[in-house]
Amino acid sequence: MSYTILTGDRATGPLHLGHYVGSLRQRVELQHQHRQTVMVADLQGLTDNGSNPQKISANVLNVVADYLAVGIDPLKTTICLQSALPALTELTLYYLNLVSVARLERNPTVKSEIVEKDFARSLPAGFLIYPVSQAADITAFGATHVPVGADQLPMLEQTNEIVRRFNHVTGQAVLTECRPLLSKVDRLPGLDGRGKMSKSRGNAIALGAGADEVHRAVMSMYTDPGHVRVSDPGKVEGNMVFTYLDAFCEDAALVAELKAHYRRGGLGDVKIKRLLEDCLQSLLEPIRTRRADFIADKGELLRVLQEGTRRAHQVSQRTLAQVKAALGLDFFALD
Amino acid sequence: MSYTILTGDRATGPLHLGHYVGSLRQRVELQHQHRQTVMVADLQGLTDNGSNPQKISANVLNVVADYLAVGIDPLKTTICLQSALPALTELTLYYLNLVSVARLERNPTVKSEIVEKDFARSLPAGFLIYPVSQAADITAFGATHVPVGADQLPMLEQTNEIVRRFNHVTGQAVLTECRPLLSKVDRLPGLDGRGKMSKSRGNAIALGAGADEVHRAVMSMYTDPGHVRVSDPGKVEGNMVFTYLDAFCEDAALVAELKAHYRRGGLGDVKIKRLLEDCLQSLLEPIRTRRADFIADKGELLRVLQEGTRRAHQVSQRTLAQVKAALGLDFFALD
Repeated sequence: MSYTILTGDRATGPLHLGHYVGSLRQRVELQHQHRQTVMVADLQGLTDNGSNPQKISANVLNVVADYLAVGIDPLKTTICLQSALPALTELTLYYLNLVSVARLERNPTVKSEIVEKDFARSLPAGFLIYPVSQAADITAFGATHVPVGADQLPMLEQTNEIVRRFNHVTGQAVLTECRPLLSKVDRLPGLDGRGKMSKSRGNAIALGAGADEVHRAVMSMYTDPGHVRVSDPGKVEGNMVFTYLDAFCEDAALVAELKAHYRRGGLGDVKIKRLLEDCLQSLLEPIRTRRADFIADKGELLRVLQEGTRRAHQVSQRTLAQVKAALGLDFFALD
Repeated sequence: MSYTILTGDRATGPLHLGHYVGSLRQRVELQHQHRQTVMVADLQGLTDNGSNPQKISANVLNVVADYLAVGIDPLKTTICLQSALPALTELTLYYLNLVSVARLERNPTVKSEIVEKDFARSLPAGFLIYPVSQAADITAFGATHVPVGADQLPMLEQTNEIVRRFNHVTGQAVLTECRPLLSKVDRLPGLDGRGKMSKSRGNAIALGAGADEVHRAVMSMYTDPGHVRVSDPGKVEGNMVFTYLDAFCEDAALVAELKAHYRRGGLGDVKIKRLLEDCLQSLLEPIRTRRADFIADKGELLRVLQEGTRRAHQVSQRTLAQVKAALGLDFFALD
């Protein structure tokens, strides 16, 4: 069965191994069988970077380069830019009338992000309402499936509430509910083992990282502080090198064997780090090369993004036209 | 000196004498000397009618007919439709990142409207943020002056805060602050003297009201309950007939004389009501006729609205392009 899939990334920085494991790898597979749209979410990136728009504008093409470098194929996947699609903001404003402020304030994902980002009373209005903007994105493309982590499920609930409310208010089945495509793997923790991998925490390896950088990052990874001498028995749980080997080493039998050896004692950190580094270098080397080629040709990146955005514009304008017709606001078209 | 003026009305019902006194009359004068845009605010109308979009869609052309009937000239004034202008929603989403939720909740106009409309915890998110949407409207047209009542001044403060914040964040003087054009007359109270004239309170005379309806409305007006016999001295303050005579009777000397007579006693309510009715009938008769002609030709109303909206689209897209360039998000145009 073929799904209509929407996914994307906030353009707040170059993508890293966490994105690769959590979503990019999956998208490369999904594009062969499904209708997939991948959106560079610059508008959403602005919702908590209102005072620093350069951070967003500087990263839009980086994210496109990351997409192409990992193998997202613009002939199979529609790669588009959120801010160039006016239908998304129009739909957002219609949907905002169907959601109460209290409901937005109860959104568990937003609540925990508000704490994490330490917004308190300075919470930007754009950030509070971003679940409604996401509902606009999802419905604009008629997405039937949205790849998410478990922590993002409340976003899809919010979207489906809006879908049901809109269809009820207009008495027409204009919008379609969506379902989650839950990621098979857990979120990749950072190099330091403290929470998720994130550029702002400095515990990430970017997809474009140089070979030296990868080497240094792996050598500095958090292992087991109790594992002092090579002969000491070591812990595998919470040991980032093994967590990463599970995620990136294709030889599962070898990893299982190494884990047993490490637990018994007699296997040094440097050895397992070298193995991990080999895995990461051979994964990242071709990505890094392709990425550098794309970054060197911004015109081509722009062309790819513009072409995908043009397709996305057609689809999203069609949804908007249906929404406006259902609201009785289809008086005329300007074009 | 020539101003750039933005004004408009929520499309929640046909316009009435309150609108005429408070704004329409002024617009007919302003259009000769200034660049004036008048917007049918259907999006804003939806912010507290999310469950009843038909109420808005059914009234868009009524409002245009009211405009034309009172003498707003589409060759001098740009008459446009809010929902047909995507730049307004795009600007709204950018500005939402520059305003905190706490700031919106402190807006005095919104606070009193929330109480008035009894929203409590069901406050629609679209309603909370409508001052930001107004800021988008005002700045999209580069309005230097906005006609408002004193109760609307906090809206312009909010707009100017956004203007300053945007210019500060981008380091460019892209947006211009606006000033109020305070209405010379107070808001017209309703026929019953209880608060402002409003269709939903049933204390209004619509601009298209028939002669009989005007007659009945005037005869039922609130005067002075203590003025029982003609010979009794009567109160002029809070007596709606005199309030309306002040607003609509051009012979100020006559009204002053009648007030004195009424205060002394010996002047009956019916007499002053007849004079008021004469004033209103001669004001409304030509408006009613022109309005009926326009309503009978919806094609012409649509043509006028579309033509004005096309002009407004060009202006608002130009502002949007400047805003996006200042944010560094002007990667390409789709057209």
